[in-house]
Amino acid sequence: MTRAVVLTGGVGGAKLVHGLIDVLPAQDVTAIVNTGDDFRHLGLHVSPDIDTLIYTLSGKANRTLGWGREGESWAFMQVLRELGGPDWFQLGDGDLALHVLRSLALAEGRTLSAVTADLADRFGIGCTILPMSDASVPTIIDSDEGRLEFQRYFVERQCRPSVRAIHFEGAVDAAPAPGVLEAIAEANMILIAPSNPFLSVDPILAIPAIRKALRERRAPVVAVSPLIGGQAVKGPTAKLMAELGLAVSNQSIARHYDGLIDGLLIDTGDQRDDPGVAVSACATLMKDREDKARVASQAISFATRLAQ
Amino acid sequence: MTRAVVLTGGVGGAKLVHGLIDVLPAQDVTAIVNTGDDFRHLGLHVSPDIDTLIYTLSGKANRTLGWGREGESWAFMQVLRELGGPDWFQLGDGDLALHVLRSLALAEGRTLSAVTADLADRFGIGCTILPMSDASVPTIIDSDEGRLEFQRYFVERQCRPSVRAIHFEGAVDAAPAPGVLEAIAEANMILIAPSNPFLSVDPILAIPAIRKALRERRAPVVAVSPLIGGQAVKGPTAKLMAELGLAVSNQSIARHYDGLIDGLLIDTGDQRDDPGVAVSACATLMKDREDKARVASQAISFATRLAQ
Repeated sequence: MTRAVVLTGGVGGAKLVHGLIDVLPAQDVTAIVNTGDDFRHLGLHVSPDIDTLIYTLSGKANRTLGWGREGESWAFMQVLRELGGPDWFQLGDGDLALHVLRSLALAEGRTLSAVTADLADRFGIGCTILPMSDASVPTIIDSDEGRLEFQRYFVERQCRPSVRAIHFEGAVDAAPAPGVLEAIAEANMILIAPSNPFLSVDPILAIPAIRKALRERRAPVVAVSPLIGGQAVKGPTAKLMAELGLAVSNQSIARHYDGLIDGLLIDTGDQRDDPGVAVSACATLMKDREDKARVASQAISFATRLAQ
Repeated sequence: MTRAVVLTGGVGGAKLVHGLIDVLPAQDVTAIVNTGDDFRHLGLHVSPDIDTLIYTLSGKANRTLGWGREGESWAFMQVLRELGGPDWFQLGDGDLALHVLRSLALAEGRTLSAVTADLADRFGIGCTILPMSDASVPTIIDSDEGRLEFQRYFVERQCRPSVRAIHFEGAVDAAPAPGVLEAIAEANMILIAPSNPFLSVDPILAIPAIRKALRERRAPVVAVSPLIGGQAVKGPTAKLMAELGLAVSNQSIARHYDGLIDGLLIDTGDQRDDPGVAVSACATLMKDREDKARVASQAISFATRLAQ
């Protein structure tokens, strides 16, 4: 039996998890999700990566936009704009229901992990979705425009500011959400999704108990590289690596995860360089269901080989 | 110059205020609005009567429903229902923007009156809209089904429970919102809208300083009767009066406002009974703009006569 844990951010990571539950029994898959992107907006608690995972796995994700719900309407945003409210972060009418229910439950004292489990259940999702922590660990960007909250950098400024450093506030004192350490301990493979290593995976790794559990792992860890042909499929990975003084290469990715991974799954078109870990390759671009299943299968069989 | 103050609830009252700003300069009209209906729902602060006034006066009210916005969409409610959220109180997609912005401002420590003034301004409304109080004064229904919060009685149970008594919690200690007493003192006529006297006007009158100001008035007070042919145009007024042991008549309305009004404006089709105050009559049903202007003009000229 394969029990897979995957550390993941939003879009790219959600695709890998989608592939995993296609090729494995869903109940054997646990996603540990970045919540460094979480923020309060208009008084609501928004968990962008958890939401992307929920919408992707339930088949409700908006494929055109790459975020939010399919068939979404925008009457709320239109009136909000007319009333002079902030319109830099788009909240669809249907999407709002999720934010309102989550915010209400959190205000009533429930934990993010309990609320997430409920929502996943409501959406009919069979795998386990765990926030990395129930504590707030906001990602803060130290940029040439000063200190920026993550969504201000990512959405409002569309990653244009040059990044000097990235902080995960409160990570040092944050406990993993209930179930996270157990899932890592019981997994027979751990995958790191092709999410942005610096913005989406590092927040998870910044929680000391999670990093320790990975360092002390018995199961193999395979990272799926977010790079294809020296570029990220989506998002600012390549731009960010350059700003951080890193070569935009799989070698840099492998070094970044040094001591935490046993293998790196890269795109077939890319050079193997000398990443210092075992390497496997497949076509890692995930556009449709077949792509997702292929990458998931490849990651699973690679990890299985590494375990032997 | 006519400076008119009107004490008002939702739908019927909003029509009278709409008529008033049609026949008077809008800046000479001040509406003091019932907030006993206000409640927290899904973590949001909802002010039904203020909202009805805002939508009516800005031409955005939904004429078919009698509440909410014209051309509203319902994607939020649909997803909320799918997620198992409470669906007994309808919140339209565009309507939500108002609730979210108000709730955010209140959470940031702003007062309901300040938020209301801002919103009225955003909606381009020229008259002054004042909540009766910045304090919470929830209307509680003591019914044959027990103690019910107002919206549970009014919306969820659709006024079906038999009412024994009505309480305005905290009214005794509530201060009028800033501007309320000044508006009453400076008005040269005070109107009571054809809103439900027991559910929509009494909460306002339950605030001691407002009642005192009305008792000590120099300006005449004219109430527009909510009854036409022994029935309310809308809502539970007649049913409620019967449950409270009152004859459903203009005499009962006048007695209810005893000592607070100088005149009662009734429908032409109704008997003048012996209400114990001056009576004037006109067709009080307000369906279109002309109707609203007619009732407003009649109330103004009646009050003007009473002042002489």
